Amino acid sequence: MALTESSLIERYFRSGGAQRPDVALGIGDDAAILSPPAGCELIVTTDTLVAGVHFLPAAPAAAVGHRALAVNLSDLAAMGARPAWALLALTLPEAREDWLAEFSAGLGALAREHRVALVGGDTTQGPLCITVQLIGFAPPGLALRRGGAQVGDVLFVSGSPGDAAAGLALEEQRLTVPDTARDYLRERFLLPSPRVALGERLRDYARACIDVSDGLLGDAGKLAHASGVAAEIAFEALPVSEELCAALGDERARFLALSGGDDYELCFAVAPVRVPELLAQLPPERWGYTRIGALVPGSGARVLRGGTVMEFSHSGYQHFS
Amino acid sequence: MALTESSLIERYFRSGGAQRPDVALGIGDDAAILSPPAGCELIVTTDTLVAGVHFLPAAPAAAVGHRALAVNLSDLAAMGARPAWALLALTLPEAREDWLAEFSAGLGALAREHRVALVGGDTTQGPLCITVQLIGFAPPGLALRRGGAQVGDVLFVSGSPGDAAAGLALEEQRLTVPDTARDYLRERFLLPSPRVALGERLRDYARACIDVSDGLLGDAGKLAHASGVAAEIAFEALPVSEELCAALGDERARFLALSGGDDYELCFAVAPVRVPELLAQLPPERWGYTRIGALVPGSGARVLRGGTVMEFSHSGYQHFS
Repeated sequence: MALTESSLIERYFRSGGAQRPDVALGIGDDAAILSPPAGCELIVTTDTLVAGVHFLPAAPAAAVGHRALAVNLSDLAAMGARPAWALLALTLPEAREDWLAEFSAGLGALAREHRVALVGGDTTQGPLCITVQLIGFAPPGLALRRGGAQVGDVLFVSGSPGDAAAGLALEEQRLTVPDTARDYLRERFLLPSPRVALGERLRDYARACIDVSDGLLGDAGKLAHASGVAAEIAFEALPVSEELCAALGDERARFLALSGGDDYELCFAVAPVRVPELLAQLPPERWGYTRIGALVPGSGARVLRGGTVMEFSHSGYQHFS
Repeated sequence: MALTESSLIERYFRSGGAQRPDVALGIGDDAAILSPPAGCELIVTTDTLVAGVHFLPAAPAAAVGHRALAVNLSDLAAMGARPAWALLALTLPEAREDWLAEFSAGLGALAREHRVALVGGDTTQGPLCITVQLIGFAPPGLALRRGGAQVGDVLFVSGSPGDAAAGLALEEQRLTVPDTARDYLRERFLLPSPRVALGERLRDYARACIDVSDGLLGDAGKLAHASGVAAEIAFEALPVSEELCAALGDERARFLALSGGDDYELCFAVAPVRVPELLAQLPPERWGYTRIGALVPGSGARVLRGGTVMEFSHSGYQHFS
């Protein structure tokens, strides 16, 4: 069935996200009208997913909708921002109603979970490509940045990086794993959980923070570079899930935790003097993060194993390289 | 030459737009940090251009960059908003430096003209597709909407619609015109001038406003629909440029003014009692707009010629129809 652009938006997206009182005018006009809270800074980001590059063409539509918002939520989490409003630019080869219904359900569920309103967008015909723009808030001057870490700061990472890369390998049938691990790893790839609540709380503790999406080692290196220091990660300290170890063995699991993409975790630096309060106020076993190393003089990111620097040929995913 | 994502952004986009003191942190982190003016509403929009759909694959890159921002500026103009910050999501088959240099120059020049800062973005590899999100401001409650027009309101349109559609036909070699008109019409298509200054001033006069991008007749119909009235346009009143008339003759020029797309003009409704002040404060010959009809009881948009309603088979461009 052919859908016009306006009926497509009306049917699938107008009521998809959270309802927020600060949306004076949402989908349906030339632009949305929004009322930001007094005295806040706006934190804004955009990320694009391209079929065949960022998700498999056969990926479940609900997972694609989830991911399109999740990658942006993760960027705001890394800034310590509270997300509020999203815009969706959706380019589709054809208006397939079953795909649209699942896509909007996946996006809408994650939006409601984080109280994000879908306030506008654009639908166009073309190769499948999804861009979400997300706007959130932070108190003035308190948003987290990549720069700001200092020598001596303790380095942490949330979650268990590497799971998503294994999940992707499963989806692409490049990997076989025990049944017990399969569902967990697939879900970790298909439905990443951006660390929004953790990011907001980290405003009080972290001196620098970055979203881990291109591989922990590379992203820790970006944080270090922006801060003018080096990151030193202890191989033995890397948090790896039981399922990833069951699938790959402990050694390969840790390598994947360093290099795999699509984690959407947070890597952050905390001044040593603040670490006890961080651990007390945000217990790691509840908030899900792990101490993995420290910031040291120098540049780049390196991994120590038994006191020796490990050599890597690959430190993260680069487009256009 | 291969470019990494970060060096591509650094080289072509970091300093492309206007410099604004309300940008606390621009391109280069997980998100941008922006300081909105106290007491304003935010007006936000997004539009996508797909190669082969919204621009010809062989279009000059500078014109594509111009258009990517212009279509969004036109949306904010229709809301009476002042544009401030843009994000760019750029999907490219390959990082061609000559194309990128021209694209960013075209986008940057228009951004600086309207004091828009480019504060963030995402570059990905895939089919050529460009999404810009634009954020601007308006005083609380004063942004213009499509709804709000009333029976008896006078209907105006800015510029000379139809020129861009003729320019597109020239680019596609579907049309030949006298030399004197060619350059003008091509430029009207390739480098549209969004009516940002007019839109801001119209906050004081218009009761409803819409961006004319899918054909004047269809877009006037959308304004009328949102307002719960009908739009009545006088065929003889349609403003058509000398060049368009030279190219097509007066009759066909007026038809194209009604149905052609890509105009990026404003169609707006003004209460009769406010029209004298509008005409005095914003002289039409200086601000470039024309009275074309009125809002009347009923629904839809119709065109009168010598007092008779004209019949049309086409009332605007629809995706997915």
